[in-house]
Amino acid sequence: MRKIFIVRHANTKYNTEKRWQGRIDLDLDEMGKWMAKRVALRLSYENVDVIYSSPLKRARQTAEEVAKVHGLDVVIDDRLIEGELSLWEGMKADDVKVKFEKEYEEWAKNPRANIPGVENVESVYRRAVDFLESLDLERYNGIVVVTHAIVIRAIVCYVMKMPLESFREFLIGNASITTLVVHDNNWWRILNLNERGFLIGD
Amino acid sequence: MRKIFIVRHANTKYNTEKRWQGRIDLDLDEMGKWMAKRVALRLSYENVDVIYSSPLKRARQTAEEVAKVHGLDVVIDDRLIEGELSLWEGMKADDVKVKFEKEYEEWAKNPRANIPGVENVESVYRRAVDFLESLDLERYNGIVVVTHAIVIRAIVCYVMKMPLESFREFLIGNASITTLVVHDNNWWRILNLNERGFLIGD
Repeated sequence: MRKIFIVRHANTKYNTEKRWQGRIDLDLDEMGKWMAKRVALRLSYENVDVIYSSPLKRARQTAEEVAKVHGLDVVIDDRLIEGELSLWEGMKADDVKVKFEKEYEEWAKNPRANIPGVENVESVYRRAVDFLESLDLERYNGIVVVTHAIVIRAIVCYVMKMPLESFREFLIGNASITTLVVHDNNWWRILNLNERGFLIGD
Repeated sequence: MRKIFIVRHANTKYNTEKRWQGRIDLDLDEMGKWMAKRVALRLSYENVDVIYSSPLKRARQTAEEVAKVHGLDVVIDDRLIEGELSLWEGMKADDVKVKFEKEYEEWAKNPRANIPGVENVESVYRRAVDFLESLDLERYNGIVVVTHAIVIRAIVCYVMKMPLESFREFLIGNASITTLVVHDNNWWRILNLNERGFLIGD
């Protein structure tokens, strides 16, 4: 069965500190490097034919670990980049909710919010769906996609046929895997959401 | 954090043969007994204060394995019973799609379908939500609920705030765990959908 493994990048310093990251381009931190290796170990048990990644380093470095195990190169796709969130970048998530209370609530509730410095969710959704629809499912059986929280939330809404307004009703942790299956009639379904049980020590 | 672990019962002979079961009341088969023990092992790492089960034997027998580990009794709740599907009971799923093509498509597409011998999805949803809303979250931090595929699909639609029409856009395997978290402001979210990675041998 065709499977698409949607991986959220592992931790950077900002994730560990619970700061908004957007397009700030940090390396994985020590914990993140370890998590990326666990993702690669988990995916070593799967057939993987191609690996796509967001251009940001935290995604690429996670993807590289998976690629090494499978002897593949990482294909960068700009449509997988995280939302543009320059208004909040670097701030702690809890502080954003206080200092930008109105903007944050508007963004969280309205996928078409128009806030300077904050890409709205519908815009992320459009490029995520464009990417998914461009995948060559005749050619590839096992696809890995390393990307970001908001992009993954948009993908889940698309596959689940749920309104974009519900994009925060589930959790997507760092280094999690959300697995889609593609049935022969091109019916896409969620097999697994936010799998993280492999993030344990040896 | 409060967690609610929604467990689908382990396999019976009918699951193994891919037959519709509805309210036919079978025991777990040999594989099912093994799976129930794996569920119990997985949940032995969690705080569990109370265990609810559907009255059907396949759910109760799964719940009993979890209960043993935690020294708890199983609380039976009739609202957790599987949909009434007497029109299709005992038939292979593939045969239902051919012999009852019209009825099956109507049931799968319309949550308010009115087909004699097939409980519609909205009816299952109503009793599932009634059960969830009756849970005493002041008293319990870790809740296990052992129930059935259609009931779990309805619960996921409720928590995800997605239309009931999308109840088949994700998979819920036998002996899977779908975990909900309840935040302090009574916001329920999906932490994990269809977790099954623990169903591996020692």
